[in-house]
Amino acid sequence: MDIKSLLSDVAAGRITPAEAEKLLAHWPASDLGFARLDNHRDWRTGFIEVVYCAGKTPDQAATILAQQSKTQAALLATRAEQTHADAALRAIPDLEYHAQARILRRLDPSRRVDAPPIAIVSAGTSDLSVAEEAALTAETVGHTVNRFYDIGIAGLHRVAAVRDNLNACGCVIVVAGMEGALPSVVAGLISRPVIAVPTSVGYGVALGGFAALLGMLSSCAPGVTVVNIDNGFGAAVAACRVNAGTPSSQ
Amino acid sequence: MDIKSLLSDVAAGRITPAEAEKLLAHWPASDLGFARLDNHRDWRTGFIEVVYCAGKTPDQAATILAQQSKTQAALLATRAEQTHADAALRAIPDLEYHAQARILRRLDPSRRVDAPPIAIVSAGTSDLSVAEEAALTAETVGHTVNRFYDIGIAGLHRVAAVRDNLNACGCVIVVAGMEGALPSVVAGLISRPVIAVPTSVGYGVALGGFAALLGMLSSCAPGVTVVNIDNGFGAAVAACRVNAGTPSSQ
Amino acid sequence: MDIKSLLSDVAAGRITPAEAEKLLAHWPASDLGFARLDNHRDWRTGFIEVVYCAGKTPDQAATILAQQSKTQAALLATRAEQTHADAALRAIPDLEYHAQARILRRLDPSRRVDAPPIAIVSAGTSDLSVAEEAALTAETVGHTVNRFYDIGIAGLHRVAAVRDNLNACGCVIVVAGMEGALPSVVAGLISRPVIAVPTSVGYGVALGGFAALLGMLSSCAPGVTVVNIDNGFGAAVAACRVNAGTPSSQ
Amino acid sequence: MDIKSLLSDVAAGRITPAEAEKLLAHWPASDLGFARLDNHRDWRTGFIEVVYCAGKTPDQAATILAQQSKTQAALLATRAEQTHADAALRAIPDLEYHAQARILRRLDPSRRVDAPPIAIVSAGTSDLSVAEEAALTAETVGHTVNRFYDIGIAGLHRVAAVRDNLNACGCVIVVAGMEGALPSVVAGLISRPVIAVPTSVGYGVALGGFAALLGMLSSCAPGVTVVNIDNGFGAAVAACRVNAGTPSSQ
Amino acid sequence: MDIKSLLSDVAAGRITPAEAEKLLAHWPASDLGFARLDNHRDWRTGFIEVVYCAGKTPDQAATILAQQSKTQAALLATRAEQTHADAALRAIPDLEYHAQARILRRLDPSRRVDAPPIAIVSAGTSDLSVAEEAALTAETVGHTVNRFYDIGIAGLHRVAAVRDNLNACGCVIVVAGMEGALPSVVAGLISRPVIAVPTSVGYGVALGGFAALLGMLSSCAPGVTVVNIDNGFGAAVAACRVNAGTPSSQ
Amino acid sequence: MDIKSLLSDVAAGRITPAEAEKLLAHWPASDLGFARLDNHRDWRTGFIEVVYCAGKTPDQAATILAQQSKTQAALLATRAEQTHADAALRAIPDLEYHAQARILRRLDPSRRVDAPPIAIVSAGTSDLSVAEEAALTAETVGHTVNRFYDIGIAGLHRVAAVRDNLNACGCVIVVAGMEGALPSVVAGLISRPVIAVPTSVGYGVALGGFAALLGMLSSCAPGVTVVNIDNGFGAAVAACRVNAGTPSSQ
Amino acid sequence: MDIKSLLSDVAAGRITPAEAEKLLAHWPASDLGFARLDNHRDWRTGFIEVVYCAGKTPDQAATILAQQSKTQAALLATRAEQTHADAALRAIPDLEYHAQARILRRLDPSRRVDAPPIAIVSAGTSDLSVAEEAALTAETVGHTVNRFYDIGIAGLHRVAAVRDNLNACGCVIVVAGMEGALPSVVAGLISRPVIAVPTSVGYGVALGGFAALLGMLSSCAPGVTVVNIDNGFGAAVAACRVNAGTPSSQ
Amino acid sequence: MDIKSLLSDVAAGRITPAEAEKLLAHWPASDLGFARLDNHRDWRTGFIEVVYCAGKTPDQAATILAQQSKTQAALLATRAEQTHADAALRAIPDLEYHAQARILRRLDPSRRVDAPPIAIVSAGTSDLSVAEEAALTAETVGHTVNRFYDIGIAGLHRVAAVRDNLNACGCVIVVAGMEGALPSVVAGLISRPVIAVPTSVGYGVALGGFAALLGMLSSCAPGVTVVNIDNGFGAAVAACRVNAGTPSSQ
Repeated sequence: MDIKSLLSDVAAGRITPAEAEKLLAHWPASDLGFARLDNHRDWRTGFIEVVYCAGKTPDQAATILAQQSKTQAALLATRAEQTHADAALRAIPDLEYHAQARILRRLDPSRRVDAPPIAIVSAGTSDLSVAEEAALTAETVGHTVNRFYDIGIAGLHRVAAVRDNLNACGCVIVVAGMEGALPSVVAGLISRPVIAVPTSVGYGVALGGFAALLGMLSSCAPGVTVVNIDNGFGAAVAACRVNAGTPSSQ
Repeated sequence: MDIKSLLSDVAAGRITPAEAEKLLAHWPASDLGFARLDNHRDWRTGFIEVVYCAGKTPDQAATILAQQSKTQAALLATRAEQTHADAALRAIPDLEYHAQARILRRLDPSRRVDAPPIAIVSAGTSDLSVAEEAALTAETVGHTVNRFYDIGIAGLHRVAAVRDNLNACGCVIVVAGMEGALPSVVAGLISRPVIAVPTSVGYGVALGGFAALLGMLSSCAPGVTVVNIDNGFGAAVAACRVNAGTPSSQ
Repeated sequence: MDIKSLLSDVAAGRITPAEAEKLLAHWPASDLGFARLDNHRDWRTGFIEVVYCAGKTPDQAATILAQQSKTQAALLATRAEQTHADAALRAIPDLEYHAQARILRRLDPSRRVDAPPIAIVSAGTSDLSVAEEAALTAETVGHTVNRFYDIGIAGLHRVAAVRDNLNACGCVIVVAGMEGALPSVVAGLISRPVIAVPTSVGYGVALGGFAALLGMLSSCAPGVTVVNIDNGFGAAVAACRVNAGTPSSQ
Repeated sequence: MDIKSLLSDVAAGRITPAEAEKLLAHWPASDLGFARLDNHRDWRTGFIEVVYCAGKTPDQAATILAQQSKTQAALLATRAEQTHADAALRAIPDLEYHAQARILRRLDPSRRVDAPPIAIVSAGTSDLSVAEEAALTAETVGHTVNRFYDIGIAGLHRVAAVRDNLNACGCVIVVAGMEGALPSVVAGLISRPVIAVPTSVGYGVALGGFAALLGMLSSCAPGVTVVNIDNGFGAAVAACRVNAGTPSSQ
Repeated sequence: MDIKSLLSDVAAGRITPAEAEKLLAHWPASDLGFARLDNHRDWRTGFIEVVYCAGKTPDQAATILAQQSKTQAALLATRAEQTHADAALRAIPDLEYHAQARILRRLDPSRRVDAPPIAIVSAGTSDLSVAEEAALTAETVGHTVNRFYDIGIAGLHRVAAVRDNLNACGCVIVVAGMEGALPSVVAGLISRPVIAVPTSVGYGVALGGFAALLGMLSSCAPGVTVVNIDNGFGAAVAACRVNAGTPSSQ
Repeated sequence: MDIKSLLSDVAAGRITPAEAEKLLAHWPASDLGFARLDNHRDWRTGFIEVVYCAGKTPDQAATILAQQSKTQAALLATRAEQTHADAALRAIPDLEYHAQARILRRLDPSRRVDAPPIAIVSAGTSDLSVAEEAALTAETVGHTVNRFYDIGIAGLHRVAAVRDNLNACGCVIVVAGMEGALPSVVAGLISRPVIAVPTSVGYGVALGGFAALLGMLSSCAPGVTVVNIDNGFGAAVAACRVNAGTPSSQ
Repeated sequence: MDIKSLLSDVAAGRITPAEAEKLLAHWPASDLGFARLDNHRDWRTGFIEVVYCAGKTPDQAATILAQQSKTQAALLATRAEQTHADAALRAIPDLEYHAQARILRRLDPSRRVDAPPIAIVSAGTSDLSVAEEAALTAETVGHTVNRFYDIGIAGLHRVAAVRDNLNACGCVIVVAGMEGALPSVVAGLISRPVIAVPTSVGYGVALGGFAALLGMLSSCAPGVTVVNIDNGFGAAVAACRVNAGTPSSQ
Repeated sequence: MDIKSLLSDVAAGRITPAEAEKLLAHWPASDLGFARLDNHRDWRTGFIEVVYCAGKTPDQAATILAQQSKTQAALLATRAEQTHADAALRAIPDLEYHAQARILRRLDPSRRVDAPPIAIVSAGTSDLSVAEEAALTAETVGHTVNRFYDIGIAGLHRVAAVRDNLNACGCVIVVAGMEGALPSVVAGLISRPVIAVPTSVGYGVALGGFAALLGMLSSCAPGVTVVNIDNGFGAAVAACRVNAGTPSSQ
């Protein structure tokens, strides 16, 4: 349903103005009492509605996923603890749970994006849970992912070695904690869009990821954009928007 | 010059190993004493080297621009005060100075990117200097810019009115101060990549742009990426990378 | 007892000045040793004294409630963990315990405020414990509450759909975490007072609710006032003051 | 114009769907190029659109006010420096400029709200510019203001002396810097809504108003709500919403 | 006037209850419109009311001092800029102005406290304006001050050299910027009360005095108490309370 | 041993210079390997060396106390968890453990200070553990303590009721969390020294005691000095210095 | 392998340019999938690659150590919990685990640095785990360590007593929490390089080590350099670089 | 004068104990009233006492330098504005003033340190004033300085090109603003000690140097130590300590 056909129906007398007013208000949300599902988010934004499990009970998460399952093939939930996974898998047995990345998902094999791969780079082994959150998210909606892990700047030759591989990707997500300098170094070497994800790896003045965040935002290498600390999911959604290519109306 | 041909020359005896070693070290930088120009940044990253005027004397800025002027047609300097502009214009008369955006630039008419326009959205009139920094930057390297100014969320209908126009662009830069909620609202309405620029507009707890920055990074609408406060330039460079389309090797 | 009649008694010789001095000092507080109850807070401020359980032992909380129970029908305790509830219910069996909102309360059926409903809006399902703390508080002193949950700005149509319902309420409490933009959006759509409650929902730069707090205080939509992070209780007390209508002396 | 009559026109064929779509999008905003006026903000929120002068040139502020002047009697601009005032007064000679409060306004004598007075309390003489910003704002839209200045808690008897006067008002705005404890004290003494405004008065750890802000939000006296530092304007808008009384639909 | 004699008058019929109520409310404050003087602060707290000039116009400061001058011999104003001094000296020619300490004062020769001296210690020469604010304040109300300046911990022997002199004082104020370690060192060497004043001397991570403040509050040498950054005045008032000796009722 | 007699011994040939040098260096500290006891701290500062248990193993704490027990009657350890208490009590059975205040102590009945009482005031019941840390500390070295608990500013009459009692004490410690305004109110009412202790009571913007700390340091009522958050111990040591009266050499 | 001999091989035709290019890119890193070992870090920086266990699973840590064990005699892992130790010891039985310092290491007896000792000073007993992390690290690569523990500034004579011992060392690491003033005091007394390590010892405004960090960086005694909070490891690596003496090429 | 000969004099009766006591206390400081010069700092720490001009009047700075000039050949003052320079040059005509670095100094040609050069690296041209403060400081006490300016990580080849030159120095100072990643990169490439100086270059989240500071302290490349923001002077003093080589007593 779109607003133009609705107005045409009104003009044609097929729908009264009062009916139209109600439809415009209530159509795109399903009310579960504790939650209102945003049924046309995928249509508007190109990415399915995703369940953020933190602060939700296992039952609430499972109920929302079960409701979504009725209308969409691909499913995704983030920050899912084992208890959320248990409840959700009872309701939807074909979900996969990735404990390290805290991701619950169901792939939709028919959803394949015709685009170059998305590169996911991590500075260290300790950043893997965030990097995998990004990778699994992008794959869920049909993108291809190339992983380049543990190539931090304490040994720069590891970065330089993959320069050509990164330039062949549509978009590069760089995941790093501590001083978070890797995105600057990468952006100075390649020409593709670089999305930086600071991680909470580090201690003391690393400030749970703030040192990396501030460093990434202050980067002397222009062209880096940044998402929230440990937000592999958000980086992936942004990368998918970038990678999907030119607007449909062009 | 690229590394393969250099090594071929060494292999062929046209260059001795000692000579090759020196070339590898010094080739891509011009040493002005107080500055070393990065002569192949455009080749590596797709964007010309840009002069950041803050903290530089007018003479230093002008000297660097004059040196760059010898080898490249398009020129760009940011955070340029009137004193920088005066010195630079004496050296390079065909520069344009945009005082509100603090931009010095020289367009290269032959540099036209074949891509959809970049949209630049501002929440309020007070955000214009940052929005214009972004717009002028993107135009300098050949992108087309569409401006949508003063459509903040206190009157949401102003945002909704331009939804289709934004979806027709390759990338959307959203500039906002105060609570910085406009990028979230835009990202929830459209499917194109959204790059958010927090501005230092506001007082008290707006914290010189930090309230907007934190809000943009915490956005409940996934797909937003963020740059430094008032960094219209950085947003534009990132948007140009996005907008330039798929990697050359695809 | 009020100060005028006391002074009249002194003037009439019914009370000596020395006695009056003591009465003025000690009358309105009951000393339990570890606590001094403020017996005329309801008389002064229109809201009963409430027990803040955090930092109190279960026995201390129960003893205070038992003492209050002697002189007032409605009882309320906030931040009550299960251990506080267990101790309090042993002492006062007709209390109700709401675990999600951490509220212990006893309703006073005779206390009904003649006023429009208070609206309580939440951005997401993860904000429910705070929203319910507000709802249960307002109900305890006799206000009616209308709940509008999970209508965050990532899907704006959910907000717009309830605009008229909100305008029909006496006061609107908006509970939101992450970037906390919902109160700005609501305040831009309606004319009733809006009290914003930032929640600690979110991670990284959400900073345990500070991103939402700063955003709400920096709102570009004037008319929003704000309470402490996760302070559903305080928002409800303020809403009850607003909702109670014009001052008695008018 | 409201949405129901528009839809009726569409139903009756008086307006085509295509025309209706445009009207819905563009009707309520006037585009000045650098600004889009929100023409129905007063209709939606009960308060006229106000010009925030900070970050605007004098000409921009004057142009916006001149445009607003065509359709509304009452005018208000905040954070107006002398240069803004000079430009605005050239365009609209019947504006008044209040330099201490940085307010430009034009009263609309026909706009009188039938409501009790709004009390404005200040802790010290140094808080007067903020207190007056609030007072002048509320008067502009037709509310009566009672001022109680310099009654800080270092001499508590000054607060106690006005207790009854405050309880006779519809809403109490309390303006305080340094430790910002006055709103807590006032809220513990009276039953009317208390809106606290932290000011940037103080030095060192007063942190430009943050000590007062944090103190007000942490108040042990429930019922206090808070606005941004030095935001007398926002407090007044909120107070006007409170003071306007019960919703029209009751 | 004290409350006991007032009540006796009421009991004896010399004052009606209504008159007594008014006296209790209004007696101790003089209302200047923009300021209410706290006339019995000296009686209550042992220290005269002092004018904080920051945020006040020169005329406001001068008017308050002129009013105080009618009822008290000693006068003190802090944070007085030259413009405040000029206005005040026109009104009260026997004031002294100390520009470095930004103090305006008039000594009352009859006010001599029978107590040991107060020691004022500074870490460096750059801390002198704060140290002198403290010294001049204490002298104004009749205390003797011994100054020990520029004895910071980079040369510890300078501190050790004055240990006995400090122990002979009633109270020791220690003024220090940068890392603010001097109070810890002094408190570890002597047995008298130590009041620490952090100063805004230093740059970068000195954070305008916060590094010193945090260090002083975290001191490993117990017995140090702290006042606001650059608050020489507050330190002196506290020192005077300490130095005045045992309570009168003992 | 003091330095004068040592030098006399050197002068008289009773001690060689080399021996004197060693004595001066090593005399006042006992080396336990992991700790060096400061044996003459009581002699220098008037307060015994106290064991800070946080970060020490139970065995380390017990070993230090056992060593101190050999040379001093009064013993005190702070931040002692149950495990520290168990280990210490095995070594020194006549210690008392106060779990709420986390204090281990042994009183020295012969140590009685001839001074007025120290008042300890708390704003709420949740502040008791800090207030008791202060009270038990002061008692350990022979001071008398008067407790005034739960008299916060939400019910000001509770403070006013004890004004005379506070003025009769030598020093007043005020313990408060949340906005921490009680010390300002107390300091405005009395003339004795006021030492403020912010507590970590509160949530959200109370920031673990920082809101109270900043408020206390920004107090508009001069004469307040402040110690670290939850530092009842430090407040008591400072109060004991104040309360001990004039310096011995006067 | 070094770059000169590689280029000579190319020049001599012993290696083709294509082969050389690959060698230059991939030679110095071993790819384990989740980790890429930096095989020539010791050669480049003079310190072996060390495993940071935080955020790694026990298996990951053990696998990396086992791989390193094949090519190097000395091994070191930091932030190793008991679970990491268990896994690593199963793989490499000759590791030692130091639980307090969370260090896993294997000494290489043949690695002895010809240099003066490194001094490690701690302010208190609670700082020992950090001090030992530093000490064990330096010993692992062949330096001698002299320990001076619990000599904080509350008893300055303990510092003065070891002045000559410290001056005899090649470098002095000073570990301190709370106000962190000990490095300033030490640097004012000696002439050797001082590396300061703030620790998270303390509470409230100690801010988990930030008060100490800011104080150390603001030191009035020049010559102090600082590492991250609790970073005994980093201090030791820096001390080893200092202590190793003059560059080899001199 | 040293303590051993003093004690010998006492033992021999050449000095009385009372005289010795005074000498020990007062010997090493010259009291100018507002300042006490630390006359044996050079003897104790190896670096002359330096005048920090910020917060000092031009006369104070000049008076201190003139006094120092009597006893030492080399002179150094930092943070000297033009007004300080004018006053100082009137008193001591052979001083040199370096305006960009805000340094006043007099070289002592006889003071030459026998050591390798100190390298000073800067990330950008905007960092030059800090880099020059370091360079001029080290030269003043006789060290040789090699400058490597504008070799930031946006063009990594500029760093790699000078690797061997840096390894030939005794110590490397790296000066960088914005994200401050250059010290990490340098420390990963060389084996000499690296002292990092964050600069206040940058805007927004660069936070006046804090982003660089946090990044440097969080460095993933061990061996980096850090000084205060913009503290080129402190870095140089530390570098001189390092560069001076092994302790004299070895």
